[in-house]
Amino acid sequence: MIRRLCIIGVGLIGGSLARALRRHADRPEIVGASRNAAHLQKALELGVIDRFETDLGKAVAGADLVMVCVPLGAMEKVFAQIRDHLAPDAVLTDVGSAKACVVEAARRVFGTVPPFLVPGHPIAGTEQSGVEASFAELYEGRRVILTPLAETAAAATSRVREVWEAAGATVSEMSIEHHDTVLAATSHLPHVLAFTLVDSLACLGDHDEIFAYAAGGFRDFTRIASSDPVMWRDICLANGEAIVAMLERFGADLEGMKTAIRDGDGETLLARFQAAKQARDAFSE
Amino acid sequence: MIRRLCIIGVGLIGGSLARALRRHADRPEIVGASRNAAHLQKALELGVIDRFETDLGKAVAGADLVMVCVPLGAMEKVFAQIRDHLAPDAVLTDVGSAKACVVEAARRVFGTVPPFLVPGHPIAGTEQSGVEASFAELYEGRRVILTPLAETAAAATSRVREVWEAAGATVSEMSIEHHDTVLAATSHLPHVLAFTLVDSLACLGDHDEIFAYAAGGFRDFTRIASSDPVMWRDICLANGEAIVAMLERFGADLEGMKTAIRDGDGETLLARFQAAKQARDAFSE
Repeated sequence: MIRRLCIIGVGLIGGSLARALRRHADRPEIVGASRNAAHLQKALELGVIDRFETDLGKAVAGADLVMVCVPLGAMEKVFAQIRDHLAPDAVLTDVGSAKACVVEAARRVFGTVPPFLVPGHPIAGTEQSGVEASFAELYEGRRVILTPLAETAAAATSRVREVWEAAGATVSEMSIEHHDTVLAATSHLPHVLAFTLVDSLACLGDHDEIFAYAAGGFRDFTRIASSDPVMWRDICLANGEAIVAMLERFGADLEGMKTAIRDGDGETLLARFQAAKQARDAFSE
Repeated sequence: MIRRLCIIGVGLIGGSLARALRRHADRPEIVGASRNAAHLQKALELGVIDRFETDLGKAVAGADLVMVCVPLGAMEKVFAQIRDHLAPDAVLTDVGSAKACVVEAARRVFGTVPPFLVPGHPIAGTEQSGVEASFAELYEGRRVILTPLAETAAAATSRVREVWEAAGATVSEMSIEHHDTVLAATSHLPHVLAFTLVDSLACLGDHDEIFAYAAGGFRDFTRIASSDPVMWRDICLANGEAIVAMLERFGADLEGMKTAIRDGDGETLLARFQAAKQARDAFSE
């Protein structure tokens, strides 16, 4: 295992990883970093990190793994601040929900894609955020996707894999383009739909009453609309092309559904609903 | 309390009401009815009903409350089968998710809106169906909407209210039109979106892999796509006008979101996401 892990941005994602690793016998020293001393102090008090630094350059010194857990829009700035302070053998990884933009940010800061950069994405989380919401079991049985490039050192990928596996996750590798397409479908599109639905209903005249008569299905369906707006703005900006493509596809399918409802075409509605139920039931098994 | 309740269609909704009422000291006799003897036998074995009839005319004989719990598309046929067999003092109610269509069906069968008809809708349920999924606590703390008309006898409405309150529900009254609009927004639209999303993704080439990388948020968001397709086809046909209106509104808002993503308009995205999160957080409190 690594000896020192620096987590930049100790919220739900970074905090949960730290908690999981601290249960291990040969746990690494865990240094928390961000510009917000109050957040870091909270993480320290909760026993999530061993110590913290608000200067990112100092924070990464001597770390053999640096995990950047900040919104995608802040990634480039963080890379720029740590660039000249990374240890010679350091591996750099991130947890961003889109990957092409992270590599582009790295290319701009480092002038090239560094062999020690391993883009990553844990497929886990809740609608909550902040270190208070973190818990050690978040990654147990969950998937983490790594998207190493041709330039990436195999040893760097192994080091990141080992840490996620130690937290209980199953690690897969895929191309950046494939990752960004798959996640646009299963995560980014649903979040945009949930945010849009709740916003749309909240703009109805009698929205207090509207929500008063909402049931459990609505509660589940809209849970992800409580997610962090800044994080999701950044994801939409970072993976916009793939998300727009999914929105086009979904919009066309929704238009077909609307036509079927308007035409009273029960046969089409039943066929589509049955196909959806079958796929959803298969997914949940 | 009533002395004899006839439940036509003993699934999740009817079965859960029966279970709740059977816990009461002065519980009514509960007669289950449907054309499917095997389902009824199952309900009897589970202790949900006291006895059953597959002949609807015989089933309603002597019942002081008849609760019709069948998909909306089957409502008219049921009304026709029981019309000449209702007791002189019987009250008739239903649990359909749209109400205008139920009144229209009654008008066609009875030639007028009968004073003993109280259209109703419990705002409760799960994505499951069938008597096996029923449970006595389903209605505790949940809302039931009754939509009595000018023609409805006040005593009939009181009788239905009393039964739902005995099951733990809070009963409200509103107009049929208002009910159908509110439910189109908070229930019918989300279901159409969930069915469409899952169907849309299932039609992608690599859908096994797509679903493999879906996380908890996707699971919650798509849970309602496991709902009963026949029931939801009927709801879409029965409340089509209100649902299409909501789809138009939602579609326009989604188009705006797509434009913001395409244009990289982070300001608009953040404002919309923040408004949605605020509304969703307020709803869940």
